[in-house]
Amino acid sequence: MKELSFLDLVRDDLEQVEVLLRERPPGQHRAIGMAIDHLVGGGGKRLRPALVLLSARLCGADMDRAAFAAAAVEMLHTATLIHDDLIDGALMRRGIGTLNADWSPAATVLTGDYIFARAAYFASQADNVRLMQRFAETLMVICNGEVQQLFDGRGDQVSHQEYERRIYAKTASLIAMSAEAGAILAGAGEGMLRALRSYGGQLGLAFQVVDDVLDFVAEEDTLGKPVGSDLRQGLVTLPVLLFLEEDPDHPAVRRALQGNSTEEVVREAVRAVTASMAIERALEVARGHAELANEALNGLPDSDYRTALSDLADFTVRRRF
Amino acid sequence: MKELSFLDLVRDDLEQVEVLLRERPPGQHRAIGMAIDHLVGGGGKRLRPALVLLSARLCGADMDRAAFAAAAVEMLHTATLIHDDLIDGALMRRGIGTLNADWSPAATVLTGDYIFARAAYFASQADNVRLMQRFAETLMVICNGEVQQLFDGRGDQVSHQEYERRIYAKTASLIAMSAEAGAILAGAGEGMLRALRSYGGQLGLAFQVVDDVLDFVAEEDTLGKPVGSDLRQGLVTLPVLLFLEEDPDHPAVRRALQGNSTEEVVREAVRAVTASMAIERALEVARGHAELANEALNGLPDSDYRTALSDLADFTVRRRF
Repeated sequence: MKELSFLDLVRDDLEQVEVLLRERPPGQHRAIGMAIDHLVGGGGKRLRPALVLLSARLCGADMDRAAFAAAAVEMLHTATLIHDDLIDGALMRRGIGTLNADWSPAATVLTGDYIFARAAYFASQADNVRLMQRFAETLMVICNGEVQQLFDGRGDQVSHQEYERRIYAKTASLIAMSAEAGAILAGAGEGMLRALRSYGGQLGLAFQVVDDVLDFVAEEDTLGKPVGSDLRQGLVTLPVLLFLEEDPDHPAVRRALQGNSTEEVVREAVRAVTASMAIERALEVARGHAELANEALNGLPDSDYRTALSDLADFTVRRRF
Repeated sequence: MKELSFLDLVRDDLEQVEVLLRERPPGQHRAIGMAIDHLVGGGGKRLRPALVLLSARLCGADMDRAAFAAAAVEMLHTATLIHDDLIDGALMRRGIGTLNADWSPAATVLTGDYIFARAAYFASQADNVRLMQRFAETLMVICNGEVQQLFDGRGDQVSHQEYERRIYAKTASLIAMSAEAGAILAGAGEGMLRALRSYGGQLGLAFQVVDDVLDFVAEEDTLGKPVGSDLRQGLVTLPVLLFLEEDPDHPAVRRALQGNSTEEVVREAVRAVTASMAIERALEVARGHAELANEALNGLPDSDYRTALSDLADFTVRRRF
């Protein structure tokens, strides 16, 4: 648990966020409540809410408002996963069944929409126009990225730059906004906002690269879903991109990327990538982002909260789940 | 065109809204731009933006902010239609093809999500926390209503009260919020807000009841989609509800409500309802709501804008499209 000690500083604040996440507004359909309990109760890492809270404590924001902002980013994250899993046909996430595994596409779409709305509601309760603007802008970046990935994202012609742009939209944008949110609520100066946004953006890139590595090397029990999910969907992530630089014509990897491969081909491709230097090189990239995240913190006043943010960046690239 | 003269007062403001609706933010995927042009360019009635603008003019709000709020409600309306049409498998709306008629479910879901995000963005640009809160609350009411309709809405056991609750969530809530929005932006007093919200709520109920009547009696060319769409989906609306009070065992109507009926059965049921007193009685209900809408305006200062709102209520129950 040493590794998660950065959460200790905001443990009580996180409790308040949990209460908000589980609150059922009057009139809310019971199916929505069940879905939220199932998905939010599934126990994510609460990385995004923790960032909002650490940033809020660091900058001296009102912590009731920060709790709303933290609930907003977690709900928004949950909503995007619901529609993603539906589209990918994913049946498991974080070791629990996805909504679309049990529900019709219609129910899944509409429940995802409701959870978007709930996220916007929490964001609005933080009572700060600038935060709402960042929330809405971030949602646009995320959705735009999803559309981009759907129309243009498959195939092996992805450059490093395109990969980074994609994971920025998908993951880092919301993590950047989370890290910035506490500072916005505190009315911090532009330098502080920029530093925290930059920290969050780099942290998010590191986080997603590690996620993409874990999709190859993690134990399925720890991962909570089958390994090689990205490859199975023909999605090129950094490990594959780096692998293809060394071995552009590897038959199993090439075939897996064309989609609709047999399970055998995918497993063989996963083994090839896992056994290659691509994994270590991808982790090197992740560590580079974590270092940039830490550098972004340099201008901030020294405090336990700053140390916690720095620990979080280190943990992100060491984690195995 | 006499009938649409209530729009004259905000014609120029509406032009500004059109510009916002068609604006393409940098980096926006071309598919999203195409979808928005197709759906927003399809030329809806712009009822909701017009309400925001009339309310803003009536209460003396900043009209640049009002234009953002007006763009927000139209975008939100568009986003909900995209997911609705996908779920209903509808191929036509307002005489143009729906998104799902041409695109995959995945592309339709994600584009709808983006347009939700775009709506939230416009709302946030109106730069008013209370407006954002009403926007988010309304979105929750709409999505909750959709989930409710999906899980519990079919079948013939719908009471008047349930019908009214459903159409409030689906339609009237956003129209109420639109009418209130201008007053919120102007910082108007609670009495004014309440009056305009109440006006919008009643107007919205009238509007949806008339829509439900037109689904039986309109010409398909004018309607822009097949008549009897609701019945074809087994959805009970007011005309059917009133028809069943007089003739509870009508074979075609009963069979149509069970869903999956032949086109012949649906057509026969539509003819039966259309030929009955249920149509006139439903229109009577709509006129009652329009009267209540007008009464809600009583407390407001007399002005051309108030007259326009009143004309709009009258028009809503007289319209044939």
